[in-house]
Amino acid sequence: MTATATDAYLAIGALVDELVRCGMEHACTSPGSRNTPIVLSLARDERLACWSHIDERAAGFFALGAAKASGRPVAVTCTSGTAAANLLPAVVEARHAGVPLIVLTADRPPELRDVGAGQTIDQLKLYGDAVKWFFELGVPEAGDERLRWVRALACRAYWTALSGRPGPVHLNLPLREPLVLEEPLAAELVRSGGRPDGRPWLSQPAVAASPTAAPPLVPAAAVADAAAQRPGRVVLVAGELGGSKDAEAARALGGRLAAFAAQARIPLLADPLSGARSGRAAVAHYDLILRDPGTADSLRPDAVWRIGELPTSKPLRAWLASLGDAEHVLLAPDDRWSDPAARVTKRIVAPPEALLELLERAELTGPEGWLERWAAADSAVAHAIAAPLRDAGLSEPAAVTALAQFLPPTVTLLVGSSMPIRDVEEFFPALNEPPRVISNRGANGIDGTVSTAFGVAATGAEVVLVLGDVTLAHDIGGLLAARRLGLKLTILLLNNSGGGIFNFLPVATQGDAFQRHIATPTGLHFAHAAALYGLDHTQVSSGDELVEALFSALAGSASTLIEVHTERQANRELHAEVETAASRSLDDHGSTGAADPVSR
Amino acid sequence: MTATATDAYLAIGALVDELVRCGMEHACTSPGSRNTPIVLSLARDERLACWSHIDERAAGFFALGAAKASGRPVAVTCTSGTAAANLLPAVVEARHAGVPLIVLTADRPPELRDVGAGQTIDQLKLYGDAVKWFFELGVPEAGDERLRWVRALACRAYWTALSGRPGPVHLNLPLREPLVLEEPLAAELVRSGGRPDGRPWLSQPAVAASPTAAPPLVPAAAVADAAAQRPGRVVLVAGELGGSKDAEAARALGGRLAAFAAQARIPLLADPLSGARSGRAAVAHYDLILRDPGTADSLRPDAVWRIGELPTSKPLRAWLASLGDAEHVLLAPDDRWSDPAARVTKRIVAPPEALLELLERAELTGPEGWLERWAAADSAVAHAIAAPLRDAGLSEPAAVTALAQFLPPTVTLLVGSSMPIRDVEEFFPALNEPPRVISNRGANGIDGTVSTAFGVAATGAEVVLVLGDVTLAHDIGGLLAARRLGLKLTILLLNNSGGGIFNFLPVATQGDAFQRHIATPTGLHFAHAAALYGLDHTQVSSGDELVEALFSALAGSASTLIEVHTERQANRELHAEVETAASRSLDDHGSTGAADPVSR
Repeated sequence: MTATATDAYLAIGALVDELVRCGMEHACTSPGSRNTPIVLSLARDERLACWSHIDERAAGFFALGAAKASGRPVAVTCTSGTAAANLLPAVVEARHAGVPLIVLTADRPPELRDVGAGQTIDQLKLYGDAVKWFFELGVPEAGDERLRWVRALACRAYWTALSGRPGPVHLNLPLREPLVLEEPLAAELVRSGGRPDGRPWLSQPAVAASPTAAPPLVPAAAVADAAAQRPGRVVLVAGELGGSKDAEAARALGGRLAAFAAQARIPLLADPLSGARSGRAAVAHYDLILRDPGTADSLRPDAVWRIGELPTSKPLRAWLASLGDAEHVLLAPDDRWSDPAARVTKRIVAPPEALLELLERAELTGPEGWLERWAAADSAVAHAIAAPLRDAGLSEPAAVTALAQFLPPTVTLLVGSSMPIRDVEEFFPALNEPPRVISNRGANGIDGTVSTAFGVAATGAEVVLVLGDVTLAHDIGGLLAARRLGLKLTILLLNNSGGGIFNFLPVATQGDAFQRHIATPTGLHFAHAAALYGLDHTQVSSGDELVEALFSALAGSASTLIEVHTERQANRELHAEVETAASRSLDDHGSTGAADPVSR
Repeated sequence: MTATATDAYLAIGALVDELVRCGMEHACTSPGSRNTPIVLSLARDERLACWSHIDERAAGFFALGAAKASGRPVAVTCTSGTAAANLLPAVVEARHAGVPLIVLTADRPPELRDVGAGQTIDQLKLYGDAVKWFFELGVPEAGDERLRWVRALACRAYWTALSGRPGPVHLNLPLREPLVLEEPLAAELVRSGGRPDGRPWLSQPAVAASPTAAPPLVPAAAVADAAAQRPGRVVLVAGELGGSKDAEAARALGGRLAAFAAQARIPLLADPLSGARSGRAAVAHYDLILRDPGTADSLRPDAVWRIGELPTSKPLRAWLASLGDAEHVLLAPDDRWSDPAARVTKRIVAPPEALLELLERAELTGPEGWLERWAAADSAVAHAIAAPLRDAGLSEPAAVTALAQFLPPTVTLLVGSSMPIRDVEEFFPALNEPPRVISNRGANGIDGTVSTAFGVAATGAEVVLVLGDVTLAHDIGGLLAARRLGLKLTILLLNNSGGGIFNFLPVATQGDAFQRHIATPTGLHFAHAAALYGLDHTQVSSGDELVEALFSALAGSASTLIEVHTERQANRELHAEVETAASRSLDDHGSTGAADPVSR
């Protein structure tokens, strides 16, 4: 029977070899018996960083973080049974966020399925439509022809995960006992079936999307068509520019967009996730500006050009939805349909670089005074909110603002869903060199946030994670990566004893049921969590202490949990106060002139 | 627009009202915005115990535990997005274990799907084939006819979850804003559409399965057919007898089976999960007996009658598979196909009570001396293993044995997958009044074990949970139920620094990759976890200390974590030593007489 195990290791070795040749750098494992050949094949490939996780859900989100921050597919393997079911949350997020994952589930062979054998569930199409591709491999055989097929298949999985809109693929691998070889196969033997030159069996270069490809990427006709949309007053709304890419590409794209807007003198309403909240066209406080009805009305444009995902800001979304007469051009980096208010009138789908080139060549220009009116509003708001923010001490908005002011631009900021992502969007100023900002905005869940951050850290980034207490409690097991995997993470915990965002919703009036079932304060003292998982812990109560703690954490090598205590109701009131101050400053300032006839 | 919210609350209120009328007693919630009408409708129904969970995965397993221990469907609701994906592990376990769940996912309405609106994923058929029934309700409307339809639908969901082989059903509820009513609707209004007598809109009594129904449940022809299978030497193999039922029904079934076997003088090889390892026909140590090849051969029966699930024991499974010439009769409590070695020659599907009646009326009787040979082997093994177990101090088998000896029969013992369930099967003696034993054996996962135990505790049971350190680390967030929900659990943690079961497998020879990726020691000091989640913590190092700690925990009202430190390699060696001693005693004893011609 040893032949069977050898077959398995040869076939899975060929699969892993091809994934590496294609460009895979990271893999995640979880313990089990049935997946032993997959785990050992990944773990023993010295070309891979291979990360072990006890909880498959954490493994999935870790893989998601690594793939998102590197722009490359990451493999994640687990054993058979409910282990595989635990990957669904990360698979769903990867699908919606456009992140390439390669899920390798071990399974029982056909004769042990659906007959009461242990740890066996129906894994065929387990993730349904949440994966781009599912394939059941069959029990491994290692004839030359079958090994070639496996190599081609591995490449197909890799390129399918990566191409078009990236996303997860799922390969299900039935395996028979024995599952272990006494002596591991030599790497040379396993890799001998691949191309001698080290290239993958099948390559699929992304011609149009290559960041190094020379222009023009865009046909002249498309440019002419776009230029024809060039009306007087345009605003550019930017969200995340494609789901996953490496830090350099992310920074380059954001910088290029900011530079274009500045040069074209077009107000740029850029979510920090775009990397483009920078330069003199950036309107950092659009969320606050557009909460003021008069200003929102006076700044109505003739056209909206959106690029990438739609930012989260509710005032922005409501304002865009209200612009029924304007042209809405959506520059989409892939085929995701992003138009919740059904306002888009033209949609151009191309890789981000081509979209940038299209913008640049279409010679859009803002009319005299248009950018200035936005800039004046932005500046008025920035001044108006400074005092209430300062007076409130170390509030949640103040903590987020401190991150913007003091984090080195080389840091990657991972932002939890719920309040933090909204505060980052509302309060992050424009920066010359903004840090990379990442958040799980595919499905906007709070699950797996800690694990995602560690996955980003695995790619070599210095990562600061800002999140709330409910989000931390949800993925508290993710903290295990600090000590077990030796990864460093600096966590800024905004602990407001519950889900602070719910205090902003009508449900907050619903008394005891609200507190118990919606706000859900955890009652946890997170210093114990830090002790459990081997993180340094410090609680800070002023901006100075926060900055000092941040610098200290960044300078050290240990993972650190920096905790800020706030109150949900006070936070809600501070937001209201700040928003009132912003609104008042806009009314006072008058720079946005409600009397402009064109905007009516 | 208030009408919309009223509609939603009327429709969801009617749904909840009917679930309660059908018999639902428990519901689980998780926080979110979109699911507000569902959460508030459940939370405000004073007839329901409504349990709040931050982590949907934990909520799912908690619901599973409550449903399994009560035999009644439990509702679990979550908000839209990846929240729903986190329920998949519990849904899969519920499907395979035959546990009735009613999953109520909130969703965005059609116009907000697949257009980049926040927290929206494709929830249609999200759980694929893992649910018995999926239904998309449509945005709630509250006309009389629609409310009647909702009432009938709720009953259909309840009875579908409960009938035949029980399992999970999934209702997807699209909801539009506003999601909150300023004033909650009066309960009388919400419930006014139901039957005035308080009965459900549609009832579906389980006629044949009713534990109170009078015999005969079984037609005479079936009895005659079964009796015709009555050969000389029969063994009865019993596993879990149907997935979910209340404690009284579980005890009654197990006791009735044990009584039948004793009266019929048929050796009863009963997994403690069956509740039937009791009485003078119980062969408690079949796992150890059947590890001895000579004895296993000499005790070959003419027929195997299996009832319920197949026990986990590998020696038992291998032995059953080796009995190619024997009749294999499977008494199946439902339509799950449980025959991994393809040995079953006759399968009888009926409710457990009918199966018991069939056995009783078929007048099976063991021939002279047959039960005595098994009993002698059992007794020899029990004596032989006592000394090595005693000499080893507080080992894992010793801890499990102590549970059997000292737990009051009123306790429910929740057993973690992996090593504990195997040690319970291998070492639990036969008891006059065995405690109820529950384990997640549908898919045998380690996930959600803590939450499952708290779910069992929610039904009013005094629960002791025995589990390993990896299993505890996997569901550590489940501990939050102790303080947040005020539930009591006594946990016996067998901490052997990693997945102890893997040391029994060939993969244990694989050096560093084994340690890092398969054994996965966590490095956690669980005293910190106890501090974090507000449990008492005590570490014990002798049997006496363990018993004292158990009694103290059971007498108190706090949740307690009792920790035993063991070593994986030493545990493996102790098992080998005990198994050798057992085997030697069987050879010495000779009572099982290999020279029996019938068994050849």
